[in-house]
Amino acid sequence: MRRGRPRSENADVRILEAAHELLVERGYDRFAIDEVAARAAVAKTTLYRRWPTKDHLLVALVAKIQDEVSVADTGDIRRDLSVYLTAVATGLDRMRRVGRDLTGEEDRSAGVVAELVAAAARHPDVGDVVRNLFARRNALPLALLDRARERGALAPGTSSEVLFDQLAGALYYRLLVTGAPIGADYVEELVGQVLAGPGATPHPEGT
Amino acid sequence: MRRGRPRSENADVRILEAAHELLVERGYDRFAIDEVAARAAVAKTTLYRRWPTKDHLLVALVAKIQDEVSVADTGDIRRDLSVYLTAVATGLDRMRRVGRDLTGEEDRSAGVVAELVAAAARHPDVGDVVRNLFARRNALPLALLDRARERGALAPGTSSEVLFDQLAGALYYRLLVTGAPIGADYVEELVGQVLAGPGATPHPEGT
Repeated sequence: MRRGRPRSENADVRILEAAHELLVERGYDRFAIDEVAARAAVAKTTLYRRWPTKDHLLVALVAKIQDEVSVADTGDIRRDLSVYLTAVATGLDRMRRVGRDLTGEEDRSAGVVAELVAAAARHPDVGDVVRNLFARRNALPLALLDRARERGALAPGTSSEVLFDQLAGALYYRLLVTGAPIGADYVEELVGQVLAGPGATPHPEGT
Repeated sequence: MRRGRPRSENADVRILEAAHELLVERGYDRFAIDEVAARAAVAKTTLYRRWPTKDHLLVALVAKIQDEVSVADTGDIRRDLSVYLTAVATGLDRMRRVGRDLTGEEDRSAGVVAELVAAAARHPDVGDVVRNLFARRNALPLALLDRARERGALAPGTSSEVLFDQLAGALYYRLLVTGAPIGADYVEELVGQVLAGPGATPHPEGT
């Protein structure tokens, strides 16, 4: 073993720490992968072999810093969904603010979350990692919805996946597209409306 | 007037055409703004004065190529929403494929749509343009939902905005995050479930 050379696992840790620091200090678009190598004191080749682009590094970083959001199943599906989605929204809001010097509500940028989505779109392998990350993460709320349906709290024909798309989708749509806020009040309103349904009559006119 | 020099409106048109060609040929991450200037035969300074970054140029391009999706109001809210959202999903799918050499369903990348979202996150001015673009675009389906509520096809307390978040959000969530398909079958299932509601009982247990 060469003197003073850390093993590669240690290099990985140092690289991710340095990348995290730079992300927080400057935001994603204002640092280069070479600076990460310099700050982590690893050879550029070591970094590029492990993460060939800045986008690859970002996903590894997000997988590390993204909170695990737990799911409580108290038997009250409305309350359980509100608690879970409020935690998701809070995590999203924290992620979007990483590396931005913000004062408050005025900044509606999607920040790191948007960069993650774009990185997944650019590189098929990064896309696979991101989609697996979300599939694992969403397994818990999907199981929560399955159990609610099984005990009769949701109609028998309800698709848990479509229901979860409506809920999580609304949060991401606001964060990434319209810039509308996703605070606890909104989550409460969203869950209430999704579960109650808009009371549409099947044939409103002329029947 | 200098001989042979086009006026700036013509330069804008040539720049956007050249950018569109390069986007289709190579995808967003594989062309540089200088190449656009060269292909459009305009001075780089002309281009940079009008669109300071590639992200700014992208948004101008998307505003130009994004289809106007019309809204029919036949009085059948379920059918009208299905038709509208199928058109939105088709447009999103076409946008994501721009500049990608795809064979079919295997490619789940969000492509240009994801780049647009990231561009909006990076630059406050681009974010404003994108959010205004969507606010204008969404005014029509929101009015459709308002009218459905007024004639009693949706419950009086229903928020059109939250309902639209559930619908459009589900499409964008699949496109940008989970990579699940957003074809006509999915739109049909989504609209049906959103309008019917999952039949949740307010106090499922212990009451």
